[in-house]
Amino acid sequence: MISKNQIKYLSSLSIKKNSQKHQKVLLEGYRLIEESLKAGADIEYIYITKNLKSKISNQILENINCDIISEIDLKKISDTKNSQGIIAIANVKKYYLNTLNQLNKKNVVILDGIHDPGNLGTIFRTCVWFGIKSIILTSSSIDPFNLKCMRSGVGAHFYLDNIISENENEIVDYLNNKNYNMIAADLKGDKIDTIDTTNKWALVLGSEAHGLSNLFEKFQKITITRKGNLESLNVSIACGIILNQLTQDS
Amino acid sequence: MISKNQIKYLSSLSIKKNSQKHQKVLLEGYRLIEESLKAGADIEYIYITKNLKSKISNQILENINCDIISEIDLKKISDTKNSQGIIAIANVKKYYLNTLNQLNKKNVVILDGIHDPGNLGTIFRTCVWFGIKSIILTSSSIDPFNLKCMRSGVGAHFYLDNIISENENEIVDYLNNKNYNMIAADLKGDKIDTIDTTNKWALVLGSEAHGLSNLFEKFQKITITRKGNLESLNVSIACGIILNQLTQDS
Repeated sequence: MISKNQIKYLSSLSIKKNSQKHQKVLLEGYRLIEESLKAGADIEYIYITKNLKSKISNQILENINCDIISEIDLKKISDTKNSQGIIAIANVKKYYLNTLNQLNKKNVVILDGIHDPGNLGTIFRTCVWFGIKSIILTSSSIDPFNLKCMRSGVGAHFYLDNIISENENEIVDYLNNKNYNMIAADLKGDKIDTIDTTNKWALVLGSEAHGLSNLFEKFQKITITRKGNLESLNVSIACGIILNQLTQDS
Repeated sequence: MISKNQIKYLSSLSIKKNSQKHQKVLLEGYRLIEESLKAGADIEYIYITKNLKSKISNQILENINCDIISEIDLKKISDTKNSQGIIAIANVKKYYLNTLNQLNKKNVVILDGIHDPGNLGTIFRTCVWFGIKSIILTSSSIDPFNLKCMRSGVGAHFYLDNIISENENEIVDYLNNKNYNMIAADLKGDKIDTIDTTNKWALVLGSEAHGLSNLFEKFQKITITRKGNLESLNVSIACGIILNQLTQDS
């Protein structure tokens, strides 16, 4: 049975500074844990309720350290109303040690001030679908390793090579020096099919509510052709449409 | 001040059968109400807390009947943890009276068994951006007029001419008779740019978890080219990518 100290430690990981310090994250729910393992996640420990353990096949529990947790203790860690009876702790050292020089001359997506965890997770999944290996988040973005982002990413985090947090100045300087083709999604800009994708590119996506940071305003703007009345498109949808076009010839 | 009976009536509208019977929906939150008005929503009444009324400009309150509601009463109606202090009641007669023969030979999106209210609202917004005027939901889909769907649609509902609920058999028969080019998004299928968009088309999107209903299996399948490891793409992202390509030449 899990100790009080372990419960305290697990709860503490839902706070960004503790997660960063220990280079660990929490994964809540069976599907997320299953998909994360499929993606190669380094899961250290699984905590499961008696009730759930009696119901599921032990396939994913066989090769990983596993302990029983009470429903009450699980509620102290979980941020959902109805806990699913299972939570895991995973090692994310490789992401917390990431710096810009890990990019390896590959195409990259930069997320500027995205605050909605559901959007962020969906963007991660969309990036992975289109073969993007590196995502950079500006300092005003939400923590990509919080419980909600992990949940909405459904394992996508672990397919990525790099999840980097950096401030805008550093990002722009680095990409400039490395001769990236820098583009930003905006409401007014060039059509996506005018972009030269022979060179490596960096695509910036800002939040719907706040738009782009000033530093990214210099980038070549691209836009999605609008046919109807709405003034803005959800940032994860914009991400999907643009990546679909940019990766078509690659 | 609002009466007990009115509170009871408003609460009742969050249940589908009552909403349908009265042909009214609830809109919660300032941004949703503002965007809905912009989209031409027929808002009958606004209920606002004293606190919020003292803070906001009265612009949107000027031309609509408005009453003060207490925080406690508002909590009885709202489904959010932190109510935003404002809720409205809107007339949606035109949607509840909709039948398939309202489609008017225009392109249409069919949503098959979509259960996530966030996804549904985002799909509505994406459809409006790309100029789609009619959406059909199969009987296994979530109620598009529930509080959460209205919120995630941020007014998109009111830009649409038709939001139709119908069973799969009726839908397929009708579209067949009217010579629609019937296509369905799937993991295996033709490339999107092979689709002939000179004729009117009907695009079916199924849920990520359950896929397509049998009846739609006969449709021409189209697929989004995958570059990475993930096995599925969020349905709202798929919707955006496909509509962007299908509407490019129109």
